[in-house]
Amino acid sequence: MDQITLQLAQYVVESDFDGIPAEVRHEALRSLINWTGVTVGGARHETVEAAMAALAEFSGPPQATLLGRPEKLDILHASLINGMASAVLDYDATQYKLTNIHPSGPVLPAVMALAERTPVSGADFLHAYLLGIEISCRLANVIFGHKNPGWHVTGAVGGIGGAAAAGRLMGLDEGAIARAFGIAATQPGGIREMYGTMCKSFTPGRACQNGLASALLAAKGFGSSEASIEAPMGFAKVLADVTELDGLTRNLGGAFEIMTNIYKPFACAIVLHPIIDGCIQLREEEGLTADDIESVALRVNPNVVKLAGRENPANGLEGKFSYGHAVALAIVYGAAGEPQFTDVLANDPVLAALRKKVTATVEDGIVKDEAHIAITLSDGSTLERHVPHALGSLENPMTDRDIEDKYNSLTEPVLGEDSAHRLLALCWDAENLEDAGDIPRAAAAP
Amino acid sequence: MDQITLQLAQYVVESDFDGIPAEVRHEALRSLINWTGVTVGGARHETVEAAMAALAEFSGPPQATLLGRPEKLDILHASLINGMASAVLDYDATQYKLTNIHPSGPVLPAVMALAERTPVSGADFLHAYLLGIEISCRLANVIFGHKNPGWHVTGAVGGIGGAAAAGRLMGLDEGAIARAFGIAATQPGGIREMYGTMCKSFTPGRACQNGLASALLAAKGFGSSEASIEAPMGFAKVLADVTELDGLTRNLGGAFEIMTNIYKPFACAIVLHPIIDGCIQLREEEGLTADDIESVALRVNPNVVKLAGRENPANGLEGKFSYGHAVALAIVYGAAGEPQFTDVLANDPVLAALRKKVTATVEDGIVKDEAHIAITLSDGSTLERHVPHALGSLENPMTDRDIEDKYNSLTEPVLGEDSAHRLLALCWDAENLEDAGDIPRAAAAP
Repeated sequence: MDQITLQLAQYVVESDFDGIPAEVRHEALRSLINWTGVTVGGARHETVEAAMAALAEFSGPPQATLLGRPEKLDILHASLINGMASAVLDYDATQYKLTNIHPSGPVLPAVMALAERTPVSGADFLHAYLLGIEISCRLANVIFGHKNPGWHVTGAVGGIGGAAAAGRLMGLDEGAIARAFGIAATQPGGIREMYGTMCKSFTPGRACQNGLASALLAAKGFGSSEASIEAPMGFAKVLADVTELDGLTRNLGGAFEIMTNIYKPFACAIVLHPIIDGCIQLREEEGLTADDIESVALRVNPNVVKLAGRENPANGLEGKFSYGHAVALAIVYGAAGEPQFTDVLANDPVLAALRKKVTATVEDGIVKDEAHIAITLSDGSTLERHVPHALGSLENPMTDRDIEDKYNSLTEPVLGEDSAHRLLALCWDAENLEDAGDIPRAAAAP
Repeated sequence: MDQITLQLAQYVVESDFDGIPAEVRHEALRSLINWTGVTVGGARHETVEAAMAALAEFSGPPQATLLGRPEKLDILHASLINGMASAVLDYDATQYKLTNIHPSGPVLPAVMALAERTPVSGADFLHAYLLGIEISCRLANVIFGHKNPGWHVTGAVGGIGGAAAAGRLMGLDEGAIARAFGIAATQPGGIREMYGTMCKSFTPGRACQNGLASALLAAKGFGSSEASIEAPMGFAKVLADVTELDGLTRNLGGAFEIMTNIYKPFACAIVLHPIIDGCIQLREEEGLTADDIESVALRVNPNVVKLAGRENPANGLEGKFSYGHAVALAIVYGAAGEPQFTDVLANDPVLAALRKKVTATVEDGIVKDEAHIAITLSDGSTLERHVPHALGSLENPMTDRDIEDKYNSLTEPVLGEDSAHRLLALCWDAENLEDAGDIPRAAAAP
């Protein structure tokens, strides 16, 4: 094996921000804005409150802002809480390629926290963020993209991405970054049984905290393997029994993983987006109502049933992983945003009756942003809809304006309009900021 | 699957200390003393110093003692550092059954830290410790005992054991302990590539910190799966592809895993003990010296080569995982304690020359505490030794006095004789203490 861990570390050290194409840097800004929106919007979620109730008392010095909240915590705890908050709405950007990784959660909180502790330029901040995304997504695709025994990929690889970003921002050398990768690689997190529970959001936060801790440890000479990813009993082999790793270092710096990240218009598992999109289309175009429906037959990608097959969601969170509930919301409300994924609606009898009428058949040939919907009406007639690419997919992406609208809808209720817009302006201008710490500081709630 | 996670949680809640046999409680005391010795002895190791340099500044309130050191940290950081210190010498007790788990490291620091924060009786303290060991060892044997893709088992299961102990001491109910198991199960740690690096010691410390955090989170209502161990995409399946889990709950309370834990007379990987034992015997009985030796042919259990096959150890730590170096030390010095596993001796030319003469052949039929040694001398003659059960094995255990001697040798140089002996007396009397926090407090270095 060809020193893959060291090659990745070398790339992280040697990458030159000026050499990164403008459209890649623009995508980083879109991703930053989307992430900031969902994090501020999720900051008061009961998952975050429970974690704060349990852990805030153990925080060290108040060094870093919790986005959308008034408190500050030490940079490690802030990374945990902000990473968790960014995931609680299941609304963050996804690389919907070979895995469903949400790469920002384990990366951005660490670079934001470091930027608050020691001033860094916005360009350095954005660059570190991009490098963290790059490392995480490459690991996700190459190691977990073809077979996955059940890892929550964001958590499995996210600590290594977080270590990359933090290590770069801290100015570590190649050997130290390779060791940071090793320290993070030996702390993977996230088993899929946790989907639909608070632990799903915990995972990216912990990955970020672990990644940052790994960089901090490596900076003080903490030892580790410099071949943690490719070694015979290293990360790829132990977690996924994968040994073919050439893709990890192929075309480094020539293509950027962030360009295949997409933003979610709906506040639930992304595998459900084509179904929701199609049902909303039928509702709007055909005047469909719940009363009309005898049955709904879906033909979907296998991941829909595997990742979002909950039959009787007991609360809003579980509803985000229930294709039946998603269909019911889309048909009854014509929407599937945060206001729809509530505990009340998860227990609504009309929705519960409708979701019992939904069946899903999986077909390997159906791609991940595609779905076929066939609805049989009470009068015996049928409505059909084929969604080749869901709204929000790479082929049908959200515009900058769509992302701003989503950001505003999430941040204005928390920060107030003025502060939300000031923060948005800082994010769009990130590349030119003298002090990137201005971004998290502007995201503090009053 | 039969609600295994919940059954284990129920056992942790309902176990009655008075029902635990006296010999089991005595073994817990032996284990406590051995662990306290190796932790105090390891407290100033460079691994611990590097971790303190990186992380101590992020500690919250100084709640818990670092054994063998003057500082206090918050209970989570103290669990990390004490768990790490207990492993740095590779000298802690091992369940040398189906795996090589060192179960105390991820358990004891959490119960010690909790005992310092909120007074608990020595009996409750000891009971929680026993329950943590029980859960960890059962998970190790049943899930990783027959096939293991490369996990450092102590770290993989240790967080769950730590959560069991902490949850019991905190008085959590069955549902909360099951959720704590889930939170810990989604944070496994430790890949074997880290053996021979500082990360090997990091792993049990982090597992302890994670286990304690899991109990703290569960106590505040943090949600998780209550079937994290047995679920189709749960811990056993994702980490080791294991579904046969009946052994986890068989005879709970009727047999105690701690009874098959053993204590190490030599300060290195336990797989090396029969080789060292045999070489010391040959040195003492035959007057063997390094100059006499043409070659050393070992016939060993396969784990010797797999876990301790380093050919050219660069430092003392790597030497603990090198069968060649172990043979060389045993023959040249007649000992293999902490004073022998130094960086200087790892680079000693006489030892380096001797270890090049050592070869190992693995045989499946050779059990883990057994070895055959055949030494060819310069004059062409041969010395042979068969060690059926190494010193320190279950069949050839260390006595209470042996354990005290080991404890004294490790603690006296750090704490001074008086303090070391006072701490020893507290440990032997643990069951009767009104305030178990007296133990860690007595282990603080001046």
